[in-house]
Amino acid sequence: MDSVVEALCAALPPHIVATDADTLARCSHDDAEWAAFGIPAAVVFATCMDDVVAAVRVAGAYGVPVVPRGAGTGLSGGANATSGCIVLSLERMTAITELNVAERYAVAEAGVLNDDLRRHVAASGLWYPPDPASQAISTIGGNVATNAGGICCVKYGVTRDYVLGLTVVLADGRVAKVGRTTAKGVTGYDFTGLLVGSEGTLGIVVDVTVKLLPLAGREERAVVGYFRSLTDAGRAVSAVSAAGIVPAALELIDRTCLHAVAEWQGWELPEDANALLLAKVDEPGARGEELATAVEALFRDAGGERVERASDKTEVDRLFAARRLAYPALERLGPVLTEDVCVPRAAVPEMLARIEATAVDAGVVIANIAHAGDGNLHPLIIAPEGDDDAKTRAKTAFDRIVDDCRALGGTVTGEHGVGLLKLDGAAAELSPVVLDMHRAVKVALDPAGLLNPGKAFPATPASPLD
Amino acid sequence: MDSVVEALCAALPPHIVATDADTLARCSHDDAEWAAFGIPAAVVFATCMDDVVAAVRVAGAYGVPVVPRGAGTGLSGGANATSGCIVLSLERMTAITELNVAERYAVAEAGVLNDDLRRHVAASGLWYPPDPASQAISTIGGNVATNAGGICCVKYGVTRDYVLGLTVVLADGRVAKVGRTTAKGVTGYDFTGLLVGSEGTLGIVVDVTVKLLPLAGREERAVVGYFRSLTDAGRAVSAVSAAGIVPAALELIDRTCLHAVAEWQGWELPEDANALLLAKVDEPGARGEELATAVEALFRDAGGERVERASDKTEVDRLFAARRLAYPALERLGPVLTEDVCVPRAAVPEMLARIEATAVDAGVVIANIAHAGDGNLHPLIIAPEGDDDAKTRAKTAFDRIVDDCRALGGTVTGEHGVGLLKLDGAAAELSPVVLDMHRAVKVALDPAGLLNPGKAFPATPASPLD
Repeated sequence: MDSVVEALCAALPPHIVATDADTLARCSHDDAEWAAFGIPAAVVFATCMDDVVAAVRVAGAYGVPVVPRGAGTGLSGGANATSGCIVLSLERMTAITELNVAERYAVAEAGVLNDDLRRHVAASGLWYPPDPASQAISTIGGNVATNAGGICCVKYGVTRDYVLGLTVVLADGRVAKVGRTTAKGVTGYDFTGLLVGSEGTLGIVVDVTVKLLPLAGREERAVVGYFRSLTDAGRAVSAVSAAGIVPAALELIDRTCLHAVAEWQGWELPEDANALLLAKVDEPGARGEELATAVEALFRDAGGERVERASDKTEVDRLFAARRLAYPALERLGPVLTEDVCVPRAAVPEMLARIEATAVDAGVVIANIAHAGDGNLHPLIIAPEGDDDAKTRAKTAFDRIVDDCRALGGTVTGEHGVGLLKLDGAAAELSPVVLDMHRAVKVALDPAGLLNPGKAFPATPASPLD
Repeated sequence: MDSVVEALCAALPPHIVATDADTLARCSHDDAEWAAFGIPAAVVFATCMDDVVAAVRVAGAYGVPVVPRGAGTGLSGGANATSGCIVLSLERMTAITELNVAERYAVAEAGVLNDDLRRHVAASGLWYPPDPASQAISTIGGNVATNAGGICCVKYGVTRDYVLGLTVVLADGRVAKVGRTTAKGVTGYDFTGLLVGSEGTLGIVVDVTVKLLPLAGREERAVVGYFRSLTDAGRAVSAVSAAGIVPAALELIDRTCLHAVAEWQGWELPEDANALLLAKVDEPGARGEELATAVEALFRDAGGERVERASDKTEVDRLFAARRLAYPALERLGPVLTEDVCVPRAAVPEMLARIEATAVDAGVVIANIAHAGDGNLHPLIIAPEGDDDAKTRAKTAFDRIVDDCRALGGTVTGEHGVGLLKLDGAAAELSPVVLDMHRAVKVALDPAGLLNPGKAFPATPASPLD
């Protein structure tokens, strides 16, 4: 056979192999702005594990890279195609193949949307906690590839904390089932945890066994408050933590973000409002009341204004509206380059101050949403459409934010993944020894380097080995 | 230099290199009965990271295996010496080098006892949850090596869930710092999680960064009840789970264990008591009361007798006394071979019934303690001292329990690790592909195979590859 495309069409039902220009373009990149991408040779829309195996085997035979893809909602370029590669889309693998209520786990194919999984298990009184902002549109396979976080992880942890097992297709086309369905288990190495967050560089995830919690026993109460300074808001976050309260959400929205939302929605902000904090507690009954009251008092003590509470679902949603509206409000101002850094909680005000200075110096608009309770910040850098100079300045700001985060003891990606956008940051953060460990394990499991090459960690040495 | 011992003495302060027969014997094995061990060439009592590096480098130069060792409380032979190896004891590395109250993490050297870490952080209002039964005598490094569980993991998870980062000495003597101190972070592969539970086969852990929870906000309430049949007790466990209650402990003690304790302590058991269930909930205030009341009712509904509750600490301890007394009560009957299997929660009664049948068939006494809420059983097989035939029968029972656990969808080790005792079980549980992944990663990180060789997974293929 002459070409990899012909080989794919021979090995697979031809209708799942797309080579038309529109599909190739649509599947050539994810939602990351500014990350490089090429045009794939073909997109395979796998409908079952055998399709994935066949595609990976063809890729191996032809020495062509495979780039796995979920819904393409990634924000780091982890699903961006390399020129001539096979994009392997899992978006049609949408079955939830098992739900075990007594043992509290479910098995979902990689293409199941996070919200669909959530709804499916909720009908049996169970809860899948990880809640990335993309939950309505992102797949569980993509969530696993990036070890996605979300709003509730300050209390409930991230995707890896809920993955019990995986079925993966390895680089040589063999199928590995790793992990377990029992509540505990320590047989062998934790390949499940290693594969979570590995961005498709070690294997293609075809299904995911997730741990579930009981849905019952939670009641959401929200507390919100405006603050005159980021320092005041930071003090409120520290005070909540110091009081031994672990909220189910603790989000911060900065002035730039607030004003964009207020202008769009016609809201009137308090004078000098420089930050909004949104907290949720989810303990039921009197304990929830007690904690919400405590958070309210701590917000006021730290200088919070218009501090409000709600325990009714509609009211909770109303108070959290600013969080949901922030991203669309900013997109009205121009293309958004989304940052994702995580610093020690106590360094959040300092990090926000540095980001403000960076915005001024680089001459770009930067708005901030932060999972403040985790120290995880999403500076949103906005450059007007078609302004190449602004784009360059945005990139400068992006790099400086990464450097500042490192200087404050942080990590260059809290929950979006390294992908392509954070390769330099990862090279700075990971020591030469740890980078060598990455390369050794990558070569061990993917000797030809065909699985999503060039993503997740810098492939070439960052500096001479010690 | 002629010998590895001379090289160790040259590279290290000679007083930390022991070669006397008593020390060699004492450090030649852990607490696992029936597991093979040899006599090491030397025991190195490292006092700092440089000692570990020097010992590993000497081992590499001489091609001599290194067997790391904490307190030697392991129950699978994971710390057993091979003949002529270097045992690398971390028990003198007992510093807690950092406690960050605001960010809620601590850094402990590998030799810190679990209870010492717990006490140290409690003084600052923080809590390290993982609570293996050995917590008073086992080290955090050993806990990490085996990914130790405990009683509270039904609600709070296992060691891996609390390890944020590690400092490890690799096989070539280089030092790798993996993980992070921030609340979240997805930079690079999860080597932290991979190293946890790897039983010293991929690197020697010298310090551990652990995540902590607030100590405040918990109030323990206990509920205990006797049951006439294991099936009744199993129904009670299922009912608690089905009610959406996640207890902070849910332990089962079987008839053999109960009678050993009762006989020793002069307790009077209810007629036909075949199982004791011990539950704890730790929600504070009214919610805790509500949950404890619910558990009490569920125990009664399932046929529980003498169901009792307590919220006072002394009373809680009194009710849990049987759990604490079980192991010493059984040791009075002879050497104990401790099993550790984990089955689906719903399969606990069936698994216990099969164990009972195995005890009869093999002609040995088997008592059971189970983390019932997790499906994690510890059948304790007792063979009278010096009775070789009984020892053989005990081994037969051990293997049959492993087989039965597999047949019920379980995993061959819930929390003790594979070590040497579960190599056959691991070979049965892990597919040839997954075993190949183990070998590939082991070779990638320890090409000469000198780090704790022969532990954690079967080194030779279990069956032809597919």
